[in-house]
Amino acid sequence: MKLIYSDAHRDHAGAKEMRYDQMIPMCESPERMDMIMEALAAAGFKDVVQPAPHSLEVAHQIHSPAFVSFLEKAYPMWEREFGPGGFATAYTFGMRGMNQVPNGSIHSMLSCYTFDVCVPFVKGTWTAIRSAMDVALTGASLMAKGEAAVFSLCRPPGHHASGDLAGGYCYMNNAAIAAQAHLNNGAGRVAILDIDYHHGNGTQTIFYGRKDVFFASLHCRPEEEYPFLLGYATERGEGEGQGYNLNLPMPRGTDYGVWSASLLTAIDAIRALAPSVLIVSLGVDTYEGDPVGGFRLASQDYLDIGRQIAGLELPTQFVMEGGYAMEALGTNVANVIRGFTRDGEI
Amino acid sequence: MKLIYSDAHRDHAGAKEMRYDQMIPMCESPERMDMIMEALAAAGFKDVVQPAPHSLEVAHQIHSPAFVSFLEKAYPMWEREFGPGGFATAYTFGMRGMNQVPNGSIHSMLSCYTFDVCVPFVKGTWTAIRSAMDVALTGASLMAKGEAAVFSLCRPPGHHASGDLAGGYCYMNNAAIAAQAHLNNGAGRVAILDIDYHHGNGTQTIFYGRKDVFFASLHCRPEEEYPFLLGYATERGEGEGQGYNLNLPMPRGTDYGVWSASLLTAIDAIRALAPSVLIVSLGVDTYEGDPVGGFRLASQDYLDIGRQIAGLELPTQFVMEGGYAMEALGTNVANVIRGFTRDGEI
Ligand SMILES: [Zn+2]
Ligand SMILES: [Zn+2]
Repeated sequence: MKLIYSDAHRDHAGAKEMRYDQMIPMCESPERMDMIMEALAAAGFKDVVQPAPHSLEVAHQIHSPAFVSFLEKAYPMWEREFGPGGFATAYTFGMRGMNQVPNGSIHSMLSCYTFDVCVPFVKGTWTAIRSAMDVALTGASLMAKGEAAVFSLCRPPGHHASGDLAGGYCYMNNAAIAAQAHLNNGAGRVAILDIDYHHGNGTQTIFYGRKDVFFASLHCRPEEEYPFLLGYATERGEGEGQGYNLNLPMPRGTDYGVWSASLLTAIDAIRALAPSVLIVSLGVDTYEGDPVGGFRLASQDYLDIGRQIAGLELPTQFVMEGGYAMEALGTNVANVIRGFTRDGEI
Repeated sequence: MKLIYSDAHRDHAGAKEMRYDQMIPMCESPERMDMIMEALAAAGFKDVVQPAPHSLEVAHQIHSPAFVSFLEKAYPMWEREFGPGGFATAYTFGMRGMNQVPNGSIHSMLSCYTFDVCVPFVKGTWTAIRSAMDVALTGASLMAKGEAAVFSLCRPPGHHASGDLAGGYCYMNNAAIAAQAHLNNGAGRVAILDIDYHHGNGTQTIFYGRKDVFFASLHCRPEEEYPFLLGYATERGEGEGQGYNLNLPMPRGTDYGVWSASLLTAIDAIRALAPSVLIVSLGVDTYEGDPVGGFRLASQDYLDIGRQIAGLELPTQFVMEGGYAMEALGTNVANVIRGFTRDGEI
């Protein structure tokens, strides 16, 4: 399976995030990708393709141009005001009753276009965001040219980002942009299967009123886990999109027995819809040792996850999302790909 | 002039706030009130009245009962989950596209009912909030019994808090609750003059559709200062409240020459409306040495502010808001009261 990857994410690093009464180094680090690439290589997956540069055209079908422009200029504007070396982040937010249109200041843009304190902007952030978009779009292009399955190793991740809100380490929604590219390339319907520990609130929001993209998410329930306000089973889509959103929330402590039953539910729903393309938002923060997660999946379970997804027999694009247990991150990701490909046989 | 004050705010202390890449002790400290009370006493103002306990009835006319209930239970719920000693604060927020109704978890409530990382909850927070409400309501009661002017020394401050959102050190909106009490006591119309350095976004939002409370605010413009998203001159009220909101934003660096011209504009507007009662949201973070502010008012200027407000010859309730320059805070506040009363003569 072709791996689409670039080192261009590397300088998106060095910022901190709030953890109760401290600011700590961000869990979402460049080294995550090193662990993953090393483990994939060790498992025999070495066909690494550099992403091709793309315009923002498809991104603008998913995100508002004003939001994308904000992502590009956030750090330079911040640096002009505060000098080099720090990172831009909001500390106040445009909730209900407040203006949802920013003025020209970086502060008002951060308040309007981010929804939490987990999306810092450093000097290398925009390069990484844009590269992750290219990684996603190059994967979609390769599939349009005949690849049955690809793995887009996007960093930063994307599934918490909506049309005009960044949050939770996510800036542009790589999986959503890939889905749009597949539609643009002629796919009749795309399914996104989000198996990250956290609900993909951004992806859900983007496609909530659409029926051309089916979104299914397995995640920890909003009563117990970030992002706390979306991810209920009752959220089924609206308007044309009614019935095209499937949330399978589970409690903290869920093990693979329960989790895999939800996976089968999602897989059955996807099979019933017969999409042209499957996108997997691949987070492995479901792992029992993940410092951010609270599920109890073991490394071996990821082999089975890959096998189950392969059973759909669909053109499949994996898009990297979360996973923060550095000692097992590479193994867990590689196991999904090993299971999916029967160790590279297909 | 009677000062309404209680020490019950004192245990609302010890939390931190985010300042760029660090968590620092909150600027909004109990010691602020010590500075103010000492300076008032030194200036001859020693008629201190303890607040009487009040029910939440008037608060519920301003804030949703669910929000008030959240304020009360936030810290106890947090402590049950994380143990004693820390403080509860949101790090992710319920922006557009997200659910605006929390589930039973403290996390979802923090995300729905606060709009920034500057409203921490510690063990003593609810006692302080409720006491500040009593301080405001006792002031209104004393005026109903004939006092021409009172000073409600509320802590925490209130003007950033809206009907169901806490933020910016503010939990319940003491000035808004006082205004409602005056109306309940028979006032035909109340004017709130907010002279804190920051826009009183909470107060504006609460009364934006009402004509029984006129809101005028002098503040640093949203292009340059917190809360960044409200406080424009174009915000004049809506529906019945059209014309009953007056914002006078000014750039950073504004000195008393420019600021006092805006004060006269606000005073003229208030005089034209002939309210029964004036409430002054008294912040002195307009001071040139304030660590949070960016205006250039000098300590002497606060004497003149008091005199100008006295010129309205209205029953007047001062309600304490911000001010963080500890070395001058007491003097600046006392100067307003000295100017207003001609050094206690009236
Ligand atoms: Zn995750
Ligand atoms: Zn202030």
